[in-house]
Amino acid sequence: MKRGGVGRVHTQRILLFDQGSPLTLESGATLAPVQVAYETYGALDADGGNTVFVCHALTGDAHAAGHHGDRSRRGWWDTMIGPGRPLDTERFFVVCANLLGGCAGSTGPASIDPETSRAYGLRFPLFTVRDLVAVHRALLAHLGITRLHAAIGGSLGGMQALQWALDYPEELERAVLVCASARLSAQNIAMTAVTRQAIMDDPDFQGGDYLDGPRRPLRGLSVARRLGHITYLSAESMRRKFDRTRRDGPDAPMRMSSDFEVEYYLDHQAEIFLERFDALSYLYLSRVMDYFEPFAEKGLELGRVSTRVLALSFDSDWRFGSEHSRFLVEQLRAGGVDALHVEIHSPWGHDSFLLEGQRYHRLVEQALREPVAQGAAS
Amino acid sequence: MKRGGVGRVHTQRILLFDQGSPLTLESGATLAPVQVAYETYGALDADGGNTVFVCHALTGDAHAAGHHGDRSRRGWWDTMIGPGRPLDTERFFVVCANLLGGCAGSTGPASIDPETSRAYGLRFPLFTVRDLVAVHRALLAHLGITRLHAAIGGSLGGMQALQWALDYPEELERAVLVCASARLSAQNIAMTAVTRQAIMDDPDFQGGDYLDGPRRPLRGLSVARRLGHITYLSAESMRRKFDRTRRDGPDAPMRMSSDFEVEYYLDHQAEIFLERFDALSYLYLSRVMDYFEPFAEKGLELGRVSTRVLALSFDSDWRFGSEHSRFLVEQLRAGGVDALHVEIHSPWGHDSFLLEGQRYHRLVEQALREPVAQGAAS
Repeated sequence: MKRGGVGRVHTQRILLFDQGSPLTLESGATLAPVQVAYETYGALDADGGNTVFVCHALTGDAHAAGHHGDRSRRGWWDTMIGPGRPLDTERFFVVCANLLGGCAGSTGPASIDPETSRAYGLRFPLFTVRDLVAVHRALLAHLGITRLHAAIGGSLGGMQALQWALDYPEELERAVLVCASARLSAQNIAMTAVTRQAIMDDPDFQGGDYLDGPRRPLRGLSVARRLGHITYLSAESMRRKFDRTRRDGPDAPMRMSSDFEVEYYLDHQAEIFLERFDALSYLYLSRVMDYFEPFAEKGLELGRVSTRVLALSFDSDWRFGSEHSRFLVEQLRAGGVDALHVEIHSPWGHDSFLLEGQRYHRLVEQALREPVAQGAAS
Repeated sequence: MKRGGVGRVHTQRILLFDQGSPLTLESGATLAPVQVAYETYGALDADGGNTVFVCHALTGDAHAAGHHGDRSRRGWWDTMIGPGRPLDTERFFVVCANLLGGCAGSTGPASIDPETSRAYGLRFPLFTVRDLVAVHRALLAHLGITRLHAAIGGSLGGMQALQWALDYPEELERAVLVCASARLSAQNIAMTAVTRQAIMDDPDFQGGDYLDGPRRPLRGLSVARRLGHITYLSAESMRRKFDRTRRDGPDAPMRMSSDFEVEYYLDHQAEIFLERFDALSYLYLSRVMDYFEPFAEKGLELGRVSTRVLALSFDSDWRFGSEHSRFLVEQLRAGGVDALHVEIHSPWGHDSFLLEGQRYHRLVEQALREPVAQGAAS
């Protein structure tokens, strides 16, 4: 990793929509208040043209880089963001904001519904990737930013960047979509369906009203996180990390409880996840992905999309493998969009987007450096 | 499908081990009583040499062919077994028996422990694939059969047939292992770990003692079955069967509950499974696979294995894909065993072993017809 990285940062919160001026969702439902949590790294140029917006994935948050006091606990994309890093904070003003529906400072289903003074639970309206963009555009308007040098994100974050490019290409010079999808497969949907069922079937879920009671649906959320992790890693990365190693050695007696190192890994990942994530946010943010299918929309006008799109995928990713990036770039190019797909070799599966990779980082750096033809965008 | 198939059959039960003569497991633990449920199709030759033993998979049972009165509900391998079918009942005496640990007539963790007069629950001893073989060998001894024309099975069934060949090659002329494994991967183990966790975390599991109470851990078992099904189908088969079709059409509002056809499929599969399968059996029979690693055993003497082994795999299987069959055949051949691996093209994933396929069935038919060199076996 280059240089020292971003230093101490703070998550800020801003109220963007209130009862007088609620957020109108794509479904027609309105929502207020809506606040959003965000962090920024680097400095905004005088002309405001150096902003790179970072879109986080399902379980991410606004804390993408730097630390909150403990230097050993750094943001989820700290290797990507910082002085001399691909999202170079000596050059770019980097913004990352928690998603609508999230549980790390932005309004979501665990927030208090002003009409009932209770947490929304399943009464929180369902929303779309377009709604995620709407909230973050409102944040940028608040910050006085009208045009982005780039939007970049992995997985759901890449889906958000894609929707942004399709709807507001004039605001977005570049979009870098890392292991994104524009159309979840039946198998993808099946996987998230299992995780949602596990959460909703947990007796402690209480029909979504667990926030009124003493217990959260930790067992269901734990199943969801375990299964999620299996889809984020590849068979090969699990082999390299764990293979069939057993904690107590090959001669220990069989047991029903965790024994293989891969089981302890899943246990540990579930445990640390339960401390930081909310089951309702998991439901809503996984569901938004299932429905995302922008190229099936009537009235999509690709001819006006001036944003340059780079789609990166990893060859061992089986959550949103290269076929997803290939499909979305084919769709864009067929409509005349300046779009490119590059597959990167990595054994680490979907999680590769969070890791440092020489070629990966160089591709992102280049994508942000190369000038984009002007004119079409205006 | 050829001809009419096997007609009406009955599942029989036989007590094989009792307190006076208990089953000694590989772990050293003893178990009694042990009964086994089995079915037979066709007639035993005078010289007893025409028996083909069918080994079932994780959630299978002894009812492999024919029907129990309702002609529309036929055994799980009815396409494979019957007059003129690969396991030709005009030629072979076919036996299929429920596994030790199962819940369809053989002794398992839901059986009554004579020492406590309660169901064993998690007090049932853990067992190995070798123990599964031991119980079925005892059944054959009871039937007066000392040598098999072949043992054949898919998935866990193939693992059982492999263990049989390794331990008692003189009893087994041929072994046909369909999408089997001799070494589950870390990802395989991770998948079953999630299903076990879902079952054991279900409050109705009651530490395994749910059989004393009014409720069974149906929510956990349902998660297990849903996830299992995802691993039994391929991404391609899910695309062909369901793609992104929504039951109420593309313009219906989003919802958190099942909407995509693939979700309804998983719901349905879980529902019918809960009626016929027991959560404890699921735990024990999935765990036995995790530990199966015969080629890592000290003292394995491949030089004495005279059984001819055919390993079949399906190119879209991602539960136990071709790499598993390739590995086990490499191990066998390195030890001088007459073993062959054939990969079959099929889009239907791991479940292909249950389906009819021209090349698949022809390969099984041939494997059972070809003579095996005599001599080495004695």
